[in-house]
Amino acid sequence: MKKLSIDACFSPHLSPVYETADSIVVIIDIFRATSAICTAFEYGVEKMIPVATVDEARLWKAKGYLVGAERDAIPVEGFDFGNSPYSYMGEEVRGKTIVITTTNGTQAIEAAKNAHKVVVGSFLNINALCEWLISEKKNILLLCSGWKNKFNLEDALFAGAATELLTQLSDEFKLGDACLALKFLYQQAEQDPIKFLAHASHKERLARLNLKKDIKYCLTPNQTNVIPILHEGALVRLVVPVNAV
Amino acid sequence: MKKLSIDACFSPHLSPVYETADSIVVIIDIFRATSAICTAFEYGVEKMIPVATVDEARLWKAKGYLVGAERDAIPVEGFDFGNSPYSYMGEEVRGKTIVITTTNGTQAIEAAKNAHKVVVGSFLNINALCEWLISEKKNILLLCSGWKNKFNLEDALFAGAATELLTQLSDEFKLGDACLALKFLYQQAEQDPIKFLAHASHKERLARLNLKKDIKYCLTPNQTNVIPILHEGALVRLVVPVNAV
Repeated sequence: MKKLSIDACFSPHLSPVYETADSIVVIIDIFRATSAICTAFEYGVEKMIPVATVDEARLWKAKGYLVGAERDAIPVEGFDFGNSPYSYMGEEVRGKTIVITTTNGTQAIEAAKNAHKVVVGSFLNINALCEWLISEKKNILLLCSGWKNKFNLEDALFAGAATELLTQLSDEFKLGDACLALKFLYQQAEQDPIKFLAHASHKERLARLNLKKDIKYCLTPNQTNVIPILHEGALVRLVVPVNAV
Repeated sequence: MKKLSIDACFSPHLSPVYETADSIVVIIDIFRATSAICTAFEYGVEKMIPVATVDEARLWKAKGYLVGAERDAIPVEGFDFGNSPYSYMGEEVRGKTIVITTTNGTQAIEAAKNAHKVVVGSFLNINALCEWLISEKKNILLLCSGWKNKFNLEDALFAGAATELLTQLSDEFKLGDACLALKFLYQQAEQDPIKFLAHASHKERLARLNLKKDIKYCLTPNQTNVIPILHEGALVRLVVPVNAV
């Protein structure tokens, strides 16, 4: 039987090269969009609408929506949230629809919109995500948001961790070259990911902004079982049938 | 003093994302275009003209040029060479101009044409290349040709080897995230690169075509000191001033 494939793409700009019409695409933006999205759903947000530009976000804000907007790791003035996971932990998010735009993560969601399914991954939901992916029996593309369309180390690290876990839990997958490389990378980093990322460019950027607490949280596995999934242009909480996993 | 940068790009399709007007771009297509090009110059070829399409190659052939053409790792019928390094070792290449088109490598050369300088790298010329790069004191982009615009393991491995060597020889460089990852990758592979590449997708493709001898040769460092460089649309042998390195 032909094996299912797992591959990784290191930039939204490169995603058109990958056939995803019959694949599940996992959007990855560890510092911090996809970590924040997983956190928001864990804290009861009902729907998140990703938009590409700050201008578009402003239109939603004018209509009365709660809006999160970040550029270059800094919250944009005039909005309700940035993309720190901690900003989505309050009671004010429960049951709400939140519009979000981020430097990299929302561009990756846009780039993946023609895939069979699009879900959001982070260390925070890694186990639930990988178990669900295996139950779906589909090809998987791990789509790293990167930093301004360039490779970044933390998204690659998560893609490696997911590859490692998926291949531990199932022997149905054949790995693309990128995933083979990432498995090796993750094995190097596994013992101490924070130390491993010490020289990563974006971690330096966040550390300058005094976001060490965010970094540590975003690298902590399994804080939630929620899997945000794209449905009619918005992220909603995936409802997994009880006997599906 | 601001450090020089080394970064790596995993696909010609992604290269527009990188600023290269003031950088030296190293074209990498280990199996086998850049290995073949380095070999041809070692055996005395005078000039190689990279062209993007087989049709264009046919026009040059009709004009009486020697032409190498490969698609999907197989020589295209009606031409003089494929892209096996062994096909460029004969006396018939000495002093000649050869036109070449390959699945991935010539696309990468095309993608890099606006860079400050464009040179050709392979394990065959790695030491000479890295010593020259250091002497130039410029930012460096290691441009992996990949396989049909996707990441491949062997080009990444070379980019990691070059990063490792450049940082051993000089402390003037700051590594982009991709190079940080590749250094780790290369350290895993260094002892036995052939074994490391055992599961790489393109190695399987070449092994099916019975090209094990080519694989071994393409992974053997320092067979030559030549550095092919792009000059007015053609690759020529870089002449390094005696006291430059």
